[in-house]
Amino acid sequence: MPRDTVADPRQEILRTSARLFQQQGYDGTSMNDVASALKLSKGGLYHHFQSKEEILFELMNHAMDISEERVINAVKPIPDPEERLRMLIRRHIGVVLSERDREITVMLHENHPLSPNLRRRINARKKDYVHFVENLVAEVQRLRGSKTTVTPRAAAFALLGMINWIYQWYSSTGSLTEELLVQQYTEIFFQGAFG
Amino acid sequence: MPRDTVADPRQEILRTSARLFQQQGYDGTSMNDVASALKLSKGGLYHHFQSKEEILFELMNHAMDISEERVINAVKPIPDPEERLRMLIRRHIGVVLSERDREITVMLHENHPLSPNLRRRINARKKDYVHFVENLVAEVQRLRGSKTTVTPRAAAFALLGMINWIYQWYSSTGSLTEELLVQQYTEIFFQGAFG
Repeated sequence: MPRDTVADPRQEILRTSARLFQQQGYDGTSMNDVASALKLSKGGLYHHFQSKEEILFELMNHAMDISEERVINAVKPIPDPEERLRMLIRRHIGVVLSERDREITVMLHENHPLSPNLRRRINARKKDYVHFVENLVAEVQRLRGSKTTVTPRAAAFALLGMINWIYQWYSSTGSLTEELLVQQYTEIFFQGAFG
Repeated sequence: MPRDTVADPRQEILRTSARLFQQQGYDGTSMNDVASALKLSKGGLYHHFQSKEEILFELMNHAMDISEERVINAVKPIPDPEERLRMLIRRHIGVVLSERDREITVMLHENHPLSPNLRRRINARKKDYVHFVENLVAEVQRLRGSKTTVTPRAAAFALLGMINWIYQWYSSTGSLTEELLVQQYTEIFFQGAFG
């Protein structure tokens, strides 16, 4: 069989788990539920993941991979810091609104029991993301000679809150389309952080 | 017994349920768990709430009561719209950071299974809150003769996202104290929404 038609079984398991966690809750989903949704034996599932917690951790890691690849790595090559920030806003909104990935990325924001050690590893990746945004805001403030007393750190948290919150209220049939939202949030944030 | 020492049993049940839902997940908490944490018989619990879903719904309703009382009702009497908006930001941040209420208010943001009819009732209350903020932003834009193209609706969602997201990253031992956060977010939002 050509390689590109062989689905990655771990990816399949993660995607199906994310869907089940959304539909029936993390605590309401058993390893048995995951196995039977995938028509896998329980042994087949445990071959890939030793516990539901491992699935949850890898789901969160995968969500951070998605954010890093599609946002951070995509904007890093842009030489102009202001354009880099504009593209970061556009791309982060794109990830939040991606139908394909929403079930995975939303896992980052929910309060599920992860052991302290695993929780720390996810939080470290989240902190790297915040620092990237914070440094970028600081760079744009410098270049613009911005007179505001807004700190890059508060601005970074404000921006991530504005964008990560979108999934709570957004409707694809509402009047705020994705493109309008990108324009409005870019304008609000640029005025807000650079005065 | 004087009235003020008699605990309201429904309030007690809601508070204990909120704590259990945070600790072990909504799906991982049974009516039995709630009853035994309160040293109630199962019959005693069912006398007050017929199902776990009813508890979840009343918790969300209670969270909306808290927001309405401590934010909306507290700012409505302020005659100057700009001062009203500043106080709304301060008080909404206060509710999000209230240790006593966090376990209750966070329930509003989590994705738990509520029947469509109950979900609609909670969503209607959330929409009323958004509209209050939206109208207030529009009023301040008019009074300031604001030239921005930022719409009150996008600004309202941005503000609620900034603030409601705080619980995801805030640490009471961090350098961003509550007072600093109020100042920074007020400045970011006023610049962002009014230019």
